[in-house]
Amino acid sequence: MGIRMGRNNYGKSRVRLLRVVRGPHGNEIREFTVAIRFEGDFDTVHTAGDNSKVLPTDTMKNTVYALAGQEPAVSAEGFASRLIRHFLETCSEVERVEVDVREDVWARVGANGKAHTTAFVRAGEEKRNAFLSGTRQGITIRAGVESLIAMKTAQSAFEGFRKDRYTTLKEDRDRVMATSIKADWLYANGDVDFNVVWEGVRDKLVEAFANHESLSLQHTLYAMGEAVLQKFPEIREIRLSLPNKHYNLVNLAPFGLNNPSEVFLPTDEPHGLIEGTVTRD
Amino acid sequence: MGIRMGRNNYGKSRVRLLRVVRGPHGNEIREFTVAIRFEGDFDTVHTAGDNSKVLPTDTMKNTVYALAGQEPAVSAEGFASRLIRHFLETCSEVERVEVDVREDVWARVGANGKAHTTAFVRAGEEKRNAFLSGTRQGITIRAGVESLIAMKTAQSAFEGFRKDRYTTLKEDRDRVMATSIKADWLYANGDVDFNVVWEGVRDKLVEAFANHESLSLQHTLYAMGEAVLQKFPEIREIRLSLPNKHYNLVNLAPFGLNNPSEVFLPTDEPHGLIEGTVTRD
Amino acid sequence: MGIRMGRNNYGKSRVRLLRVVRGPHGNEIREFTVAIRFEGDFDTVHTAGDNSKVLPTDTMKNTVYALAGQEPAVSAEGFASRLIRHFLETCSEVERVEVDVREDVWARVGANGKAHTTAFVRAGEEKRNAFLSGTRQGITIRAGVESLIAMKTAQSAFEGFRKDRYTTLKEDRDRVMATSIKADWLYANGDVDFNVVWEGVRDKLVEAFANHESLSLQHTLYAMGEAVLQKFPEIREIRLSLPNKHYNLVNLAPFGLNNPSEVFLPTDEPHGLIEGTVTRD
Amino acid sequence: MGIRMGRNNYGKSRVRLLRVVRGPHGNEIREFTVAIRFEGDFDTVHTAGDNSKVLPTDTMKNTVYALAGQEPAVSAEGFASRLIRHFLETCSEVERVEVDVREDVWARVGANGKAHTTAFVRAGEEKRNAFLSGTRQGITIRAGVESLIAMKTAQSAFEGFRKDRYTTLKEDRDRVMATSIKADWLYANGDVDFNVVWEGVRDKLVEAFANHESLSLQHTLYAMGEAVLQKFPEIREIRLSLPNKHYNLVNLAPFGLNNPSEVFLPTDEPHGLIEGTVTRD
Repeated sequence: MGIRMGRNNYGKSRVRLLRVVRGPHGNEIREFTVAIRFEGDFDTVHTAGDNSKVLPTDTMKNTVYALAGQEPAVSAEGFASRLIRHFLETCSEVERVEVDVREDVWARVGANGKAHTTAFVRAGEEKRNAFLSGTRQGITIRAGVESLIAMKTAQSAFEGFRKDRYTTLKEDRDRVMATSIKADWLYANGDVDFNVVWEGVRDKLVEAFANHESLSLQHTLYAMGEAVLQKFPEIREIRLSLPNKHYNLVNLAPFGLNNPSEVFLPTDEPHGLIEGTVTRD
Repeated sequence: MGIRMGRNNYGKSRVRLLRVVRGPHGNEIREFTVAIRFEGDFDTVHTAGDNSKVLPTDTMKNTVYALAGQEPAVSAEGFASRLIRHFLETCSEVERVEVDVREDVWARVGANGKAHTTAFVRAGEEKRNAFLSGTRQGITIRAGVESLIAMKTAQSAFEGFRKDRYTTLKEDRDRVMATSIKADWLYANGDVDFNVVWEGVRDKLVEAFANHESLSLQHTLYAMGEAVLQKFPEIREIRLSLPNKHYNLVNLAPFGLNNPSEVFLPTDEPHGLIEGTVTRD
Repeated sequence: MGIRMGRNNYGKSRVRLLRVVRGPHGNEIREFTVAIRFEGDFDTVHTAGDNSKVLPTDTMKNTVYALAGQEPAVSAEGFASRLIRHFLETCSEVERVEVDVREDVWARVGANGKAHTTAFVRAGEEKRNAFLSGTRQGITIRAGVESLIAMKTAQSAFEGFRKDRYTTLKEDRDRVMATSIKADWLYANGDVDFNVVWEGVRDKLVEAFANHESLSLQHTLYAMGEAVLQKFPEIREIRLSLPNKHYNLVNLAPFGLNNPSEVFLPTDEPHGLIEGTVTRD
Repeated sequence: MGIRMGRNNYGKSRVRLLRVVRGPHGNEIREFTVAIRFEGDFDTVHTAGDNSKVLPTDTMKNTVYALAGQEPAVSAEGFASRLIRHFLETCSEVERVEVDVREDVWARVGANGKAHTTAFVRAGEEKRNAFLSGTRQGITIRAGVESLIAMKTAQSAFEGFRKDRYTTLKEDRDRVMATSIKADWLYANGDVDFNVVWEGVRDKLVEAFANHESLSLQHTLYAMGEAVLQKFPEIREIRLSLPNKHYNLVNLAPFGLNNPSEVFLPTDEPHGLIEGTVTRD
């Protein structure tokens, strides 16, 4: 029984870029961290050390900067598309190019009641993501958000669940529910105003989380996905990955005190993890 | 020459607390991570294993929850003061109690144009800090901010610096300047509206950073500290620790391209680090 | 066009366990971080808030401890198998159970020339992993290693690669090569001495990395995978994910100095990333 | 009441260096992360933007590489001393130079029963540190270790402690004790074989932790410090910072099971923190 090379890819990760667009009414900035991966006919690179088909990952990095110098990079999705088309055009042995962009979101400083033209603060922990995958047949585009941390102190219950001999959890009609929203969604095509829709999806996810009468985090996951698909016809499906960041009610009875849902212990581990895709039929 | 115990302290770190205050018009939440340290006459604990004076760190943790159950914890500074007074009253051998509070800042969800009453999102990466140190003679109060990330794409130069044989840096009249603001400030006394002043200092630091005609990060550090002291007479001194998060202009000449201050490489390491205290005479 | 629930899973992550086995000649310890995921018929949990089929993730956590109390947990793979069988037996609506175990590896303290019986130090940054996936038809077992950091200062070249207009990398006959080995491998069946084979694979990966006359990191990846498959017939395939942690030669010419491959700048970003599976035919 | 500049420093952090020494019998490598700080007469830099005395932090970085190109950097302490002397000689306005070195420790690959000459693996999570502070009057040298993780499953008790109304901790005659050793020690002078003594101190710390009949972590801290001072007369004092990484016994009674000190829950937060200096009279 022989040994052979199976599926493989190679590329450059954590290529960082700040693109400043200098306009008459102030500057725009975008900060990206880019990962590029190639798949294709690279077996002999591995088995024989033949580098003749290998575009160095250092060149991938240079290409990020060279293309950024030629265009203003108005969206992560647009910039990733441009990179994919470039590599498919110039590297004949590459069959698939994947580009991930993670964006650190900046907001203008609101000094003196109006937005500053050239000063910015980081908008939050949340990241804006884009995941594109392209072949000579076409490009699929996913956008996403990550580390969008949310909590609700009402309208969250977890009751009527299955119990077995290792179950000690109590039914809870009124718990604190918190999560770090991670989502990505597939666009039906590339004819999208990516910046406007991203803002809209982000706000819709938060709104649905906030307003849902939740019977479980799974129940809320579906409500969040459904709300996005109902509002944005350009989105075909949305995947959500929601850790259940438990805030445990502290037992104050040993100290002679009640705890009417006021004092909680935040925990990072262990945590529940609820993942699912909401899709169109 | 003998061996003996020198200076020492013990305590509990990373005690996490969420305090929910449930009011008629919605909930308020505060999320704290607390560290407590005791100093005092504990030599024989170390040298002889005598635990009779040692209040367990587990009890320190319990005390955080028990006190939080008895008061609404309206500010990190107020809650830390309450903890210090409790321990100084109940533990006679303790000479000094230090309490650090790191607050994760939450903002109300702004659903449907008005603030939601029971849903929240994390306000950003920045942390609100309080550092209190108390003895039976009194308590000193420091407040702070950390991980407040800011960038300016104009009004920043670095020229006329000293050069030696290892200097290769070019003079720069118009660079990108970015930092992660870490600051703490000493209150003259405890008669302060801690929440209002904290917001005011945070905004003043950002405003001064944004509007300064900077000749160096040191120059801007002083301007930031001076602006805070000028506006807030209740503050005696402010310490600033400002990493210079370099955004390096990428050389696009090898690709036949100009780079008119548009394409930058963000870096985390190495980084400059500028630290200083601005104080009243 | 309707909206519906697509693929989904739920479970508990970061369940931490230390299992001490107390024997006549000393103690054995194993420290695991466990993640459990269920897939099955859970659509109405999401769409209707019906929790009657949902075993709480809190119960999953309890089950980890209850089973650990009933058996000595001699290997990550064995313990994960036991968990999977338990859940498949007790939860009829579950179709697939996945269990990941990440092990922090401890070594005995070697005090006074012989191994201490009850004291341990963490063996290194590397983690031992197990990834099991079970249905009522059977269980597949993958073992792995992660964060095994290795460097070679000889026998590594990268030459003869493809060049385009954005290529500036120089050919290099003698570079420093470093990586953080991440690998997982699929066992043909469960009849394996998991602890012995894991140690053997780990050592073989390091040995192959060290001794290979490398023409590229891809070339070395294949050599590492091939060496493992040649030695361990119980392994069907091995996946390797190797970041190219670049150590860049520093140009000392501006300071009037040569640099005969002695002074390097270690970097974390950007980094190459080489991934591939070596498999049997 | 005026405003003025108080104490300040500036420098470069996270300057990374790999130094390879190529010998006839194989290579030696050292990987350092260096931080450099200057104190001196820099008030007008802050208050007036006068950069004429400011050696750029970029030059500090270049100096690390230039000096590394001129000497083999046989120890962190020796390399830091060399940097300090250089800066004090060349920068007249600098009064104090502090250099911190954090070393990632590498070990030779032990392929085929003997040590490989040019391949290495990271020796563990632990870091070797050096903290030097120099003026024109002299240099003080501290060495240290960090992230040296240790556990003992016997010979650890915590009993007889103080109790108040918030105390719920039970007395424990036989607990698991774990910590992540962080220590630094002051050398009486610079006439030390830094590499040999560092290895000796590291081993002595682990041995003392392992063999101590512990009545508390404070008790063990003193035993560790005392053991180091007894063995190494060249060390004047040692500071230890020991988190008490709690491994909590899991209550299996709800599942009808005993837990004879076998099943524990490892936790990162909250944790105790025990800090103290052991010194010569």
